[in-house]
Amino acid sequence: MARNKHPEETVQLILDVAFRLFMEQGYEHTSIQDIINHLGGLSKGAIYHHFKSKEEILVAVTERMTAESNQMLAAIRDRADLNGREKLKTVFRESINRSVQNDIFTVAPDFHHNPKLLFGLLHDTIEEAAPNYILPIIEQGISDGSIKTDYPKQLAELILLAANVWMNPMIFDSSEEESYCKFMIFSQMLQGFGLDVIDSGLLERLQELTSIYNRSKNRNRE
Amino acid sequence: MARNKHPEETVQLILDVAFRLFMEQGYEHTSIQDIINHLGGLSKGAIYHHFKSKEEILVAVTERMTAESNQMLAAIRDRADLNGREKLKTVFRESINRSVQNDIFTVAPDFHHNPKLLFGLLHDTIEEAAPNYILPIIEQGISDGSIKTDYPKQLAELILLAANVWMNPMIFDSSEEESYCKFMIFSQMLQGFGLDVIDSGLLERLQELTSIYNRSKNRNRE
Repeated sequence: MARNKHPEETVQLILDVAFRLFMEQGYEHTSIQDIINHLGGLSKGAIYHHFKSKEEILVAVTERMTAESNQMLAAIRDRADLNGREKLKTVFRESINRSVQNDIFTVAPDFHHNPKLLFGLLHDTIEEAAPNYILPIIEQGISDGSIKTDYPKQLAELILLAANVWMNPMIFDSSEEESYCKFMIFSQMLQGFGLDVIDSGLLERLQELTSIYNRSKNRNRE
Repeated sequence: MARNKHPEETVQLILDVAFRLFMEQGYEHTSIQDIINHLGGLSKGAIYHHFKSKEEILVAVTERMTAESNQMLAAIRDRADLNGREKLKTVFRESINRSVQNDIFTVAPDFHHNPKLLFGLLHDTIEEAAPNYILPIIEQGISDGSIKTDYPKQLAELILLAANVWMNPMIFDSSEEESYCKFMIFSQMLQGFGLDVIDSGLLERLQELTSIYNRSKNRNRE
């Protein structure tokens, strides 16, 4: 690999290669040396110049995915043809249906050994996605009468914490049956807030992702 | 300090000293060297034999507090004079009123720099406290008719995740006003599940702990 590449291109190349290997072999079975071997002559020093550990590469890979997800959330938030409640429904449907979700659940990192990854997900959920995308949608819903709450910021946080973290089969190692039960309780919670925004299509997709994750996890930890 | 102490006593002594210094100076302002200086001749090697980092000492300190909290939860779970709903109410009231809570919020660790601590709290909440203490209480409530749900395990998890993690002012740096709003949304969530188990005493105590935390945090990060 040429030495005069722009550092940002080098970083993107490392992330591309790492992501492909994580997908093929699973995160736990991929070493930094594997990544170097596929970088066509980039030295160990060059990779450690950008990333201190394999976990840092994983965090950067997921941050890149999160940036894509946030673009999708921004596009829904800014639509002119939907009221607040419809936008919230669209967020749930489109978020879980993105094909990149299959990739993330195939990489199947073990959150027990990657506390920084968990922290990154929690941080993005509560400090980025909730205030920047879900809160404006709920506020629009209050204005147009399609959502009723006195505490839009906290409602946005709690809903997203439950959806992104608690219902995420990777984090608490849910079986398909547990994903079903979590969906039912989540649905009941939303009803309690007067929010009829999820349907059985979401449940089927959640179970599909849980199944992908469990197959990948078993492969990774053999 | 005598060299022939039982290792477990050495560990407890390290934790006692570390906890006292964390309380007095704040976690962020206490170094491993400070802890050694107060251990009456214990060498740096001896402390690193038990703990690899200051964060590991903090994790052990909080695990000791968690063990005490779990004893309290077990005692409520095993009472013969209350129905399930009353036990849940007692859990909330007694958990937040424990005086050791003031200590934890005075230590005020910065969760942003201690991802292992956050992981430990999440792990204890979902994999220990929810299944071992809250789930049996909800199951009793289903039997005695005081709680209605088809998914007791998931209800236990979601309630405790919201209470221990989301409402915890240390984790998402809540102001007193935000703690108030979180309490209101949490209360509404419980109502949606038919659970009338928290009252304004809880709110006042949550605001008190938020205030202790914010004072300590400002001291720590000066």
